[in-house]
Amino acid sequence: MKVYLAGPEVFLPNAREVLDAKIALARRYGFTPVSPGDLEVTAYEFKRAHGLAISAVNEKLMLSAEMIIANLTPFRGIAADVGTVYELGFMCARGCPAYGFSNVAKTHFERLKGYYGGAVHPDAQGRPRGPDGLAVEDFDMADNLMLDGGIEARGGALVTREVAGDRLFLDLGAFEECLVLAARRLLASTAR
Amino acid sequence: MKVYLAGPEVFLPNAREVLDAKIALARRYGFTPVSPGDLEVTAYEFKRAHGLAISAVNEKLMLSAEMIIANLTPFRGIAADVGTVYELGFMCARGCPAYGFSNVAKTHFERLKGYYGGAVHPDAQGRPRGPDGLAVEDFDMADNLMLDGGIEARGGALVTREVAGDRLFLDLGAFEECLVLAARRLLASTAR
Repeated sequence: MKVYLAGPEVFLPNAREVLDAKIALARRYGFTPVSPGDLEVTAYEFKRAHGLAISAVNEKLMLSAEMIIANLTPFRGIAADVGTVYELGFMCARGCPAYGFSNVAKTHFERLKGYYGGAVHPDAQGRPRGPDGLAVEDFDMADNLMLDGGIEARGGALVTREVAGDRLFLDLGAFEECLVLAARRLLASTAR
Repeated sequence: MKVYLAGPEVFLPNAREVLDAKIALARRYGFTPVSPGDLEVTAYEFKRAHGLAISAVNEKLMLSAEMIIANLTPFRGIAADVGTVYELGFMCARGCPAYGFSNVAKTHFERLKGYYGGAVHPDAQGRPRGPDGLAVEDFDMADNLMLDGGIEARGGALVTREVAGDRLFLDLGAFEECLVLAARRLLASTAR
């Protein structure tokens, strides 16, 4: 089964190395991995054309895959990388099994409490809000409910664990747990 | 044509009022709008079950729609709201016309330069990176290339404009521009 390995690893200084480690691990569990950055994109004269070409290649890779494992570790802020989230929504709409992982164990609610310096309080209807008036989701979830919900609705799982700060985008333990779960599910379905 | 109005407006203190204004505007351009929050969700005893129920309702609403207009204004950070981005990817995978808008005119690259306090410099391969080593996309785009790319590949547009800070999630000018573009496109396709 072909699996799309989505995640912000493409932005790392050692992107190729980390992607190769993920690819090797996915193969070990019997999957055929594809990931953003697998295909060379022609360099265009205009920046925007170049960006559009990369987007087109990634969509093509997704359409070739039957499953997604998305790295949803908070990226440059309190939420998952939006490029990865686009890809998660894309694969969920296609009805593909979807798995996610985050190397931050704190829930979405806990991270938002941190973001607001603890100043999250229930409004008159009992809904938690930050000092800016924005509602804070409190659903025991790793990120926005569309992400956790999309994954769960496709029979997947969102695995979280806390890793050392300098291993935030390098530790593959939670990623491997997704592979274990996905391989087990595949085995169970083929055994039926 | 039924259009899904995605966006973080659902978190505003006056969410219903803003959603109703968007709905009224969409109707004026001949669309049948649906938006997250349109359907009441049964309150569940367990938080997570409640969140999953909301996710399921939103996915159902998306499946009932043929087009999306997503509010991609940076939300609690430098990027779009991840719930909205999930929905954008979802509708793009379904091949629906997709439009986006942002009430922040700065590009993704400019916002990231701000995030890094200006310390974005090209690496040995000429690729811009922040002081943490992470690559910074520089593609003249409003957000991550998957968002801009997904919208453009579906013939849509990502409209940006700068609004006053206190109108960041209230100003509907860019949203209305999406409606104008979508209505014009629909007219052109039916006239053919």
